[in-house]
Amino acid sequence: MIKIVIDTKGSDKGPSTIIRGASLALQKYPELSVLLVGDELLIKTECQVLGMPMDRVEILDAPGEITNYDSPADAIFHKTESSMLKGLSTLAERDDLFGLVTAGNTGVLLTGAMRYLSGKERVRPALAAVLPAANGGFTCLVDTGATIDCTPQMLHHFARLGSEFMRETYAIESPKIGLLSNGAESSKGNKLVKETFPILEADESLNFVGNIEGSNALSGDCDVLVCDGFAGNQVMKVTEGTATRIITDIMKYAHRTESDEVKKLAFHLMGVYDIGSLGGGNILGIAKPVIKARGNAGETAIVSIAGMFVNMASNKAMFDIEKNKI
Amino acid sequence: MIKIVIDTKGSDKGPSTIIRGASLALQKYPELSVLLVGDELLIKTECQVLGMPMDRVEILDAPGEITNYDSPADAIFHKTESSMLKGLSTLAERDDLFGLVTAGNTGVLLTGAMRYLSGKERVRPALAAVLPAANGGFTCLVDTGATIDCTPQMLHHFARLGSEFMRETYAIESPKIGLLSNGAESSKGNKLVKETFPILEADESLNFVGNIEGSNALSGDCDVLVCDGFAGNQVMKVTEGTATRIITDIMKYAHRTESDEVKKLAFHLMGVYDIGSLGGGNILGIAKPVIKARGNAGETAIVSIAGMFVNMASNKAMFDIEKNKI
Repeated sequence: MIKIVIDTKGSDKGPSTIIRGASLALQKYPELSVLLVGDELLIKTECQVLGMPMDRVEILDAPGEITNYDSPADAIFHKTESSMLKGLSTLAERDDLFGLVTAGNTGVLLTGAMRYLSGKERVRPALAAVLPAANGGFTCLVDTGATIDCTPQMLHHFARLGSEFMRETYAIESPKIGLLSNGAESSKGNKLVKETFPILEADESLNFVGNIEGSNALSGDCDVLVCDGFAGNQVMKVTEGTATRIITDIMKYAHRTESDEVKKLAFHLMGVYDIGSLGGGNILGIAKPVIKARGNAGETAIVSIAGMFVNMASNKAMFDIEKNKI
Repeated sequence: MIKIVIDTKGSDKGPSTIIRGASLALQKYPELSVLLVGDELLIKTECQVLGMPMDRVEILDAPGEITNYDSPADAIFHKTESSMLKGLSTLAERDDLFGLVTAGNTGVLLTGAMRYLSGKERVRPALAAVLPAANGGFTCLVDTGATIDCTPQMLHHFARLGSEFMRETYAIESPKIGLLSNGAESSKGNKLVKETFPILEADESLNFVGNIEGSNALSGDCDVLVCDGFAGNQVMKVTEGTATRIITDIMKYAHRTESDEVKKLAFHLMGVYDIGSLGGGNILGIAKPVIKARGNAGETAIVSIAGMFVNMASNKAMFDIEKNKI
């Protein structure tokens, strides 16, 4: 059995959608049980309506809520009764809980994760995204926006965290580490990339494959793509923007030609390139798995993330933060 | 009449392809004439074979060639007889020549453009790309890789150059200037973006519309998108990588389903998203229009770029570098 904490608040789509996602996840994964955090009465009612298996559901009442207007520094002290922070502190305290998923405020989540789950050193965690690669595998992009301005030491840390994560979660023995640059040659890069390159090259614990340019970011040439949070945000959002635009074009074409095949194609592509429904952001560098779902996360996102937790648990992916210290 | 310089060397596809492109451009644009720079004998032979209108063709013999292995510093002194540098110096000297296109080495081209066309101050020019936006218009992305590490002053300069370029070339009265960031809010950005924001905001000659995130880079929300060369390279290459990947998916689907409509769609999208054939890179901040075609430029690219020159000339787009000095 694996038990995960689900923050029912924080999604733009409201708690009912998140609870429906939890219900679907319980149906799909018989080894799963959930701790639902939020308004107890609302959760109880929804569970009844959905006929959820209550022997696999625990409810934790948390009347408060983190909004997108809360600053991390304030929230961490004054909103400990919010569903997100109560969920995180409970995850840290109880050995029977494996991980947590929330769609709420990223800044508060990172600060909360650092506060409750990073041990004594309080190192800022990284935010990674596991994205489907063109070769059928997955690429872990890190960092995707937790730390916008980075040092070479931070990128080195991200490389180690990403390598560990892909080994544990996807059972890749020696994950290939790429460094996002403006060209594949080792001489290419901005100041940060040029300073990071020799550090990654010198670290024998990493399977560093060199610079990767944007056109190959998700080709599958590497298992972990390392970059600062600004560049990682661009890779995510430009990919999404381009995919959305092309799919919109295809939909228009389908309407014009009334072709069923084209319509089917558009729906297929929507599924493949709906980054919002894919896994969400994995917080790396803390003691237990925490996943940030997109702000507009719905049922599909929750089911998909529950699947990631199940996958991690079966690979015994308990994160050893001491091992990743630099 | 408008006369442009075409460097017949530098493309991976060889001089014959470039000359065929010139021939097609002359057919398409009756107001166009060309100065072809390269191996005189080869050019003459090709012109005869293609039956080109020789009253609109001038040939300039240049036996040397710039390769991708040439360093800008060396080439600028020792390879002045190369087709690219001889083309640039001739463009600078002769009033009857409007602009130049080459598919050769970008670094040498930028240095050469600065040497021959930037006046006394020798300010490093910017490399811009004009890309089709989702709303049917065009977005000028600047810088796309000429200057990888930038200062806020450089981004300010790019904003001015881009604004001027879009006003002159596309007849947009007050081009909207966006700043590429990791979020639309004014508080978002890395150190460079945060320092640049107030400078763009304070410049009353610019129609600054604020931060633009990657998902909207090519939505048409701005006419000029300003960023450092590293980020600009990512926007270009991630867009291209994503489009190529989706179109490959569609081609596979077309083969599997044997649907003619899907096949037609794939070819249509290839045309729209073939960034390589679109305009190429515009060098901004110099006295005359110079366009860098992609290294693998073929006939289509040359015709498309010739069209840009014709467009510029009709808008009387002579670049006034003094006006853009900061």
